[in-house]
Parts: sequence; C-alpha cells; structure tokens
Amino acid sequence: MSDRPNVLWIMADQLRFDYLSCYGHPHLHTPHIDALAQRGVRFTNAYVQSPVCGPSRMSAYTGRYVRSHGSTWNGMPLRIGEPTLGDHLRDVGSRAVLVGKTHMIADAEGMAWLGIDPKSEIGVRRAECGFDIFERDDGLHPDSARQNWSAYDDYLVAHGYSSDNPWEDFANSGVDPDGELLSAWLLKNSRLPANVPEEHSETAYMTNRAMDFMQAAQNDDQPWVCHLSYIKPHWPYIVPAPYHDMYDSGHILAPIRADAERTTDHPLMQAYLNARVCRSFSRDHVREQVVPAYMGLIKQLDDNLGRLFKWMEDTGLSRNTIIAFTSDHGDYMGDHWMGDKDFYHDVAVKVPLILYDPRPDADATRGLVSDALVEMIDLAPTFLSVVGGTPKPHILEGRDLTPILHGTGGFSRRYAISEHDYHWSEMAQALGVPQEHAHTKMIFDGRWKYIRCETFRPILFDLQSDPQELSDLGASDLPEHQEVRARMEAALLDWATRHHSRVTATPKILEGQKIAAEVGILIGFWDEEEYEATTGKPFDSLKPVGRSNRST
Amino acid sequence: MSDRPNVLWIMADQLRFDYLSCYGHPHLHTPHIDALAQRGVRFTNAYVQSPVCGPSRMSAYTGRYVRSHGSTWNGMPLRIGEPTLGDHLRDVGSRAVLVGKTHMIADAEGMAWLGIDPKSEIGVRRAECGFDIFERDDGLHPDSARQNWSAYDDYLVAHGYSSDNPWEDFANSGVDPDGELLSAWLLKNSRLPANVPEEHSETAYMTNRAMDFMQAAQNDDQPWVCHLSYIKPHWPYIVPAPYHDMYDSGHILAPIRADAERTTDHPLMQAYLNARVCRSFSRDHVREQVVPAYMGLIKQLDDNLGRLFKWMEDTGLSRNTIIAFTSDHGDYMGDHWMGDKDFYHDVAVKVPLILYDPRPDADATRGLVSDALVEMIDLAPTFLSVVGGTPKPHILEGRDLTPILHGTGGFSRRYAISEHDYHWSEMAQALGVPQEHAHTKMIFDGRWKYIRCETFRPILFDLQSDPQELSDLGASDLPEHQEVRARMEAALLDWATRHHSRVTATPKILEGQKIAAEVGILIGFWDEEEYEATTGKPFDSLKPVGRSNRST
Repeated sequence: MSDRPNVLWIMADQLRFDYLSCYGHPHLHTPHIDALAQRGVRFTNAYVQSPVCGPSRMSAYTGRYVRSHGSTWNGMPLRIGEPTLGDHLRDVGSRAVLVGKTHMIADAEGMAWLGIDPKSEIGVRRAECGFDIFERDDGLHPDSARQNWSAYDDYLVAHGYSSDNPWEDFANSGVDPDGELLSAWLLKNSRLPANVPEEHSETAYMTNRAMDFMQAAQNDDQPWVCHLSYIKPHWPYIVPAPYHDMYDSGHILAPIRADAERTTDHPLMQAYLNARVCRSFSRDHVREQVVPAYMGLIKQLDDNLGRLFKWMEDTGLSRNTIIAFTSDHGDYMGDHWMGDKDFYHDVAVKVPLILYDPRPDADATRGLVSDALVEMIDLAPTFLSVVGGTPKPHILEGRDLTPILHGTGGFSRRYAISEHDYHWSEMAQALGVPQEHAHTKMIFDGRWKYIRCETFRPILFDLQSDPQELSDLGASDLPEHQEVRARMEAALLDWATRHHSRVTATPKILEGQKIAAEVGILIGFWDEEEYEATTGKPFDSLKPVGRSNRST
Repeated sequence: MSDRPNVLWIMADQLRFDYLSCYGHPHLHTPHIDALAQRGVRFTNAYVQSPVCGPSRMSAYTGRYVRSHGSTWNGMPLRIGEPTLGDHLRDVGSRAVLVGKTHMIADAEGMAWLGIDPKSEIGVRRAECGFDIFERDDGLHPDSARQNWSAYDDYLVAHGYSSDNPWEDFANSGVDPDGELLSAWLLKNSRLPANVPEEHSETAYMTNRAMDFMQAAQNDDQPWVCHLSYIKPHWPYIVPAPYHDMYDSGHILAPIRADAERTTDHPLMQAYLNARVCRSFSRDHVREQVVPAYMGLIKQLDDNLGRLFKWMEDTGLSRNTIIAFTSDHGDYMGDHWMGDKDFYHDVAVKVPLILYDPRPDADATRGLVSDALVEMIDLAPTFLSVVGGTPKPHILEGRDLTPILHGTGGFSRRYAISEHDYHWSEMAQALGVPQEHAHTKMIFDGRWKYIRCETFRPILFDLQSDPQELSDLGASDLPEHQEVRARMEAALLDWATRHHSRVTATPKILEGQKIAAEVGILIGFWDEEEYEATTGKPFDSLKPVGRSNRST
C-alpha cells in the first residue's frame, strides 16, 4: 500500500441534497452517509456547474466550468485536448480509475484529426474523461442509440437472469402481484419491486465492483483515485424489495411550491412549467408513486455504502483512503411545479458533499458542518492536492478544499456559477429561441441567486428572505433589487471575461514572461548609452546569438 | 491547375491601416496595393482580435477569439486540440501552406500528453497553426531564446554574406558613411541603409519564396491557400537602399496626440505612458528617425508586391487566385504619446484589409470601399467558403465575407472585439496588477469604443465626435455616456457568455438533439395510454433494444 492516501470518490446520480437524514430529511434515514459526515466535513452550500448529468460531470472530471470545457449538454463529446483530472493525477504517480458512470462521449472526430487510435491506451482514456476503466456503466435508455450491452447485463445473464435485454427486464422493470412484468419507464409502476433481488441490483453490483477494484489494488505501491459512480437514484424510479415498500404517503414531504409560481410572467419559466415532465410531476398521484421509490433507492444506496465502508474498515483500507460523497445534481420531484432537473432551484443545482480524511490532519474538523460556498469543480484540485500534485490554476478552475478539510484555513467562494444549454428542449422550441441563444447562467453569492436568460429578463431569488425560492424578484422595481441585479451582472461579466482557456501557460511561465519594468521589450532604445544605462549591460552583449542556436 | 480558386493571403506585420496611399497617406505612395484595392474590396473598418502579434495571429489562423483559443500573449503555445484554418481547408481538399511568419509556439506538453510525435506530419502541422511549411520565418529577437538559425540565414551565407549571425549583421544592421556596422535595435540608426542589398533583403527573399511555392504548385490539381506572411514593417526599423532615403521630415505626418492625454487620471493609461517604449516614441527626434524607415519598409513591401502581382499575371495565376492583403496590428509611432502597439487606438488595432477575387462573381464590387465593421477572424470562414467548405460556425467565430466581396449581400458586425493580456508588462508591474486580472477587452460598435480594464474604470471614445480618439469619456458624468457604457458592458456580457467552446457539436448535431416538443425526454409518462397518446407509438416499441446493440 502506498503511503500516499487513496481517494474513493463516490457520486450518486440525481440525488437531491435534502434527501439524506444528515441534510435534514425527517423520514429518510441514511445512517451510513450520516456517519461519514460525522467523521468528516459536510458542506451545505455545494453547487454543481450544470443542473444536468453530462455537463455537470464533465466539469467535475475536468475541474473546469462548462463554459471552458464546452460539453454543454448530454451527449456532446468532451473536446480532444481538454485535460482531465485523470491526466493530472497520473502525472504525479496516482492511478485514476472509473467504476460506474461518467456520461462521457468520446470526441471521435478530434481523435481522428490528431491521429489518436481510439483503441490505444491514450485513446481509451480520452474516451473516458481521462480515467482508466475498471467498470463503465452509464445506465440504460431504451430509446437511445447509445444503449450498449454492458458488463452488468453479462452479470445478470450469468446469474440466471436470461433475456435479450436483462437490464431493462430485471433492473428497470417491476412485477405486479400477478407476476406480470411492468416497465418502470412508466411512473405508475414505480412502487412495484424491481424484478431483481437487491443483491443483484445495479447499486449492489457497482458496490461489489468497487470492492473488486480496491482488493485488486491493495498490493500496489501506487495510490489511486477511484471514481465510484452510481447511476441511482436517477430514473427509471424503481427499487428492489424490501426498499420498494419502506416509504408511503406519510413519508412524502409536502412539495416546495407556491401557486404564484404558476402565474409567472417569465416566458422561459412558463415554457418550463408547460414542459411535459413538469406537468407530470406537478400531479400529486405522480409524486405519491415516485417519491417513495426515490427514497427507497437512496435508502438502498446508503445500505450499500454501509456495507462498503465496513468492508473498507475490515480490510484496513479506511485508514488510508479519503472518501468523498456527492451527486451530479438534484431532482425537482414536483417542487416548484417542475420535474427532473435542468434549472437552478436549490433542489436541482445544490448537491450533498461530504469529505472524509482518515488522517490525523483532519482530526480537528471531524463532524464539521461547513456553509462555505463551494463548487463541484473544487473536487479535482482537492484530489490533486491530496495525492501531492502541484496546483494547476491555469487549467483547474476549482479551488483546493483541503484547508477547510484540515481546518488550516477557510474560504468561501464569492460566487458559484452554473450553466445550462437548453437548445435541445421543449422550452427552446416553444419559445423559438435559436440554438446560439438557448442558454442560461446562474450566479449565486450565498444569498442572491441571479439567473441570466440571454433573450429574456433575468430571474432573481433572495434566499435569505425566501429560502424556498418561491418569489422571483427578476422584474422587481425596488431599488435594492435593481442594485443587486446590476451587481450580479457585473460579477458575471468578471467571471465570463476571466481567462478560462489560457491553459498552456502556468503561473510560473507567466511570471517568467514578466519584462523587467525599466527595460521593457527590446524596442525603443535610442542609443548604446540609453541601453546600457537602462539595462546595466553592455549593448554588445545582445549580439552573440545566431549560429549557437542553429537548429540544424 | 484546380478549377477551384487558390487564395494568396498576404499579411504584413505591424502595418498601420493609414500608412498606405489607398488609405489616405499623402506622402507614402503604394500603387501596387492601391491597384489591388481598385480591383477588389477595401475595408475601412477591419479590427484585429488582439493588438499584438501572437494572439492576433492565433485568432487569424483559428478564426476564433483570443478568449476561445487561449493563446493570450506572444510565446504562449496554441493549445493542442485547437483546430486551425489549415485543418478545415485540408478537410475539403485544399492545401494550406505557410511562407513566412506565424509567431506560433507548439504545445509540446500537449503533444506529449496525447502521444503525438512532434516530427510526424500531424505533429509538424500542430506546431505551425495547421499549415504545411514551405518556409517558416518568425524574424529575429537577439535577446530571445526562440532565436533560431533560419533558411534566410542560409540564403544570406550562400550569397556571400558570411557571419555567425547573418540576419542580425546584414538585414538588421545599418552601415554608416564610414562603413561601420550599426545595429537597428538602436533607433538612432534607423535611417541608415540596411547592410544588405534590397534584392537579398527579407521582404524580397520572402516574395521570391512565395513565387517558388506557387511555381511548384502550378501543376497540382489541388487548390491551395498560401499564407505569405512578411515580418516587415515590424521593428527593427531599417530598410535597404534606396528605401532608407526616400522619406524625410517633410513626409512625416504630425503625431495624433493631445496634451490632455498626458494628464489622464486613468492608472492604466498613466502606466502605459510611463512605459519606456512610449516615452521613447513620444520624443520628436525618435519619430524623425523611425517614421522615414517605417515608410521605406512599406514602400519596399509595395514594390515587392508589385513584382509578385506582375509575375502572377504573367504566369496566369492571377486568373484563379483570390488575394487577401492585411496586417496583424498597427504601430503607434508616437501617436497618443505611445510606441509599439498593445492597446486599442485605431492606429494599433485597426488594420488594412483588401480582398480581391478575380472571378466574374466579384465584378460588381471592383473598387468598392466597404465601411462594414469586420474582424480578422472573418478571413478564415471566408477562405473556407471560397474553397467550397461547409461553414463551421461552432468552431469558426468569424463570418464569411464572400457576400460583401460578391455584392450578394452585406453585413456589418454589431461589435468588433479585441483582447489584450498585459501580465508580462511594465504596466502590470508598475500597478501591481496580479496575473489573472491583467487583461483588457475592447468592444467597438462602429462609433463607440469601450475598453474594459478589469480592475480600473473603463475607457470610452466616441469616434464620431472624436475620430482621433483624444478624449476619454470613461469617467464622463453625462447621462448619454453613462448609458453608452452600460450598453457596451451589456454587449460585452452577451459576447462573453456566448458559446465559444462548444466545438464538438455542429448546428446539425444540435438540431438533431432537439426533442419532440410534445414528447420531451423519456421521463414523466404515467402509463401506456399517456405514452401512446403523446408519442403516437405503442409503448412496446420502446422495448426491443439490448442484445442487438451488444458491443461485444
């Protein structure tokens, strides 16, 4: 085992920040995640850089804003030449290993252009966010061309679950009391038990695969960062017994919503509310079926993490493994009359984030609850720091969280940023917004959440007076709100005009480019005397270049 | 010869827009360039994307803003994975060939990371802005580690100009009446004749090399875009006889400057004015030496272009070769009490741009003077269009100028943008501005030129009432000026938040991602009935995926 720590980076998919007991859910008890928080630092203001899987993850895996990496929606290849956390980790002798989902699409055109064989080691890493693949699994979309037969399908078949589409027929379908198979792509079936026993379910399988990796790596002298990336509690919402039956309507929290939200004059919000998924999740009978299944999936995840953490304890891995737990975005679940994600209310854009460091350096902060404003892109520089890498602020736009984790110093971001490209959406079509204008940006300063909508007026929430974000102040005439909007626009301009692409010049290179203040560039010297008085060097010292630098 | 046109893209270095007779210089007669303008379209409002060689050229060669390609200052490698005009041209069967300067630095680290051999064809192109090199020549800096022995040095030696550093000793040095060799790195020597006859000077040599290329390519059936990139009239300011003696103080235009500019309260402008090169060029005796040499260099360039154009006429190449003539930025020459470039007055950031298309399509516009606001990045999509390529708006941020050239439609940009990263500079040091904040952005709408200075107040010029840009309205209290500043900030935010990095998704791909407005994403259907009513398809049609997509 290396004496440098490992990192187990656990990511749930579509897990709201507030559906864990340590984040305040009164009925959904998640003791294993809570215990991790007790041993580590729990962040209450962690924001993702896009409220949708693909771009949020590309930000997580590159440590860069969506604006910078350019993969603005699901299924958009991460451009070739965009460096990832895996690359930075390998540079300092750490492995970067994937077990689960990334939502990455390879830039096949870019690889062909640069002559990179997709089957080569470099090509495979470029296709997988820079990770080496121990297990890849992006879940299933029955209507997607990206649907591939996976190792989990093989696993199911090997365990006797024979089908042409085992994932769909077992993991994503339920059985009714008459034994009939019913698809969880239909929400009415959400409360049925999945057609697979818990121990062969996706969450259990991926937990086992993480253990397989850690076991195999145990005798390496190389530290690793393992990204254990569950595809649950993402839809389809269905969970195996006994989790399908643990929660009922008595455990469902009232939706966070106000009638006034439905009468918004904002065209984009109107279009969201008219989108099919929002109309669907605004119905009480939908919530009554789906929320218990969603809760069951989270409960199951917590139990599997308990199993994993115990195994890590038993094998001694816990002593030297930093654990991060987070999610790629939330889920509206009918709050604000909305479904799925894709916008910026806290239930969609804020995520749980727990960091646990077993080393004595973190003893001072065990159980700390940090309300520092942080971003998902802060994890990449944190992990790089943990494995001993040099900071790369010219590439990694996040900030190292280690000072908070070790109690050696704190910071809180002045702003968190999140971005969404809605060119694909029902909203863009309903409003006739062209591709290039169909984007929104959120900037949040810990109190004010400002959403720039390009062709429409902005949206503004004051989370101090309105923590549930029910009242849009984007058109308010109050001078205070006008002032806040102007300030947030200015801050967004600061952010947007900042260097994001100057990735080939380290701060040290930039420092080295500094020109002696008195000398300037070699232009403008009148005569030898001026040159020598200014530079302190004889003018002739300029001369002997040339042949000595002959490259041939 | 291909029936598709060739493009000869001529770029001068550091050529002001107003030092050509077709652009109004009363004493500097440039009949050959003027004649090109008579046969083509001359643009009077063409702006470069950075007022300094490296970033301006990287924008020209990528068709993208500095913000997008990230090579923000000289010597910063163009990141691997940044597609260039050469790549786009090759994709549609055209050659892209370099004769001269690019100022490009290869991203060696990026190439190593992606396993690209720098000596391979792909590696060599990546090191040279995507061009195939016929001749590379970035000029000489005697104090630069980048100084390499060049083909021009070989040429000089082969013609009897023997030295350890022939370029410096012959091309960049003068001889005084006593036969003593004096360096043109000292401005006092600018009016001496260069120590090389005109026919062996840099400008003549590069002209010859362009003819060598065109001759060699004449029997190809592949069209080409040849970038003939002169390093003159860039400093060191010295020119061979007889050009050294063609102009004297009677031909020097009065400097564009006002005493009020020297008493600016703007810290950044104060720092510029205190920079050594600006103090130097503010002295009349400096201008008296340098301006005649600068004019001589331009006159020499014009004569060489005359020779080139005649040769192209004689060989028949003119009939099928589109000619573009431009520059990478201007030169203050003491205007505004400034020297060199690096800021946004028109004399630095506006360039000459002439487009000549010999084909009948352009007959309607011969001699046209276009005041359309255009940018240097518009050339890349124009050349791609000329050789028959499909537009690539997701990568190329410029606009095709062909409609203006052919008179089939016009456009004028709402804004031109230019950017400067001054982290390296005396100004940053004098003001203590940290690396990440040492940048400025210009946005110009054809009348108002607004310069955002990050940590300082903005600068504003009204080119309608103040075409010489002598009066900074950045702190003006007039409501009109406040309103203009707010409008320009808003426009800059529009630009800055626009997609610049979404390079892997063509408009067609984005269009294909559109989700049927009534259907949405496959989430939120309650039951079979709702699914079928909405989609018009039986729910069972979702099912048969899986094994058919098995990738193994």
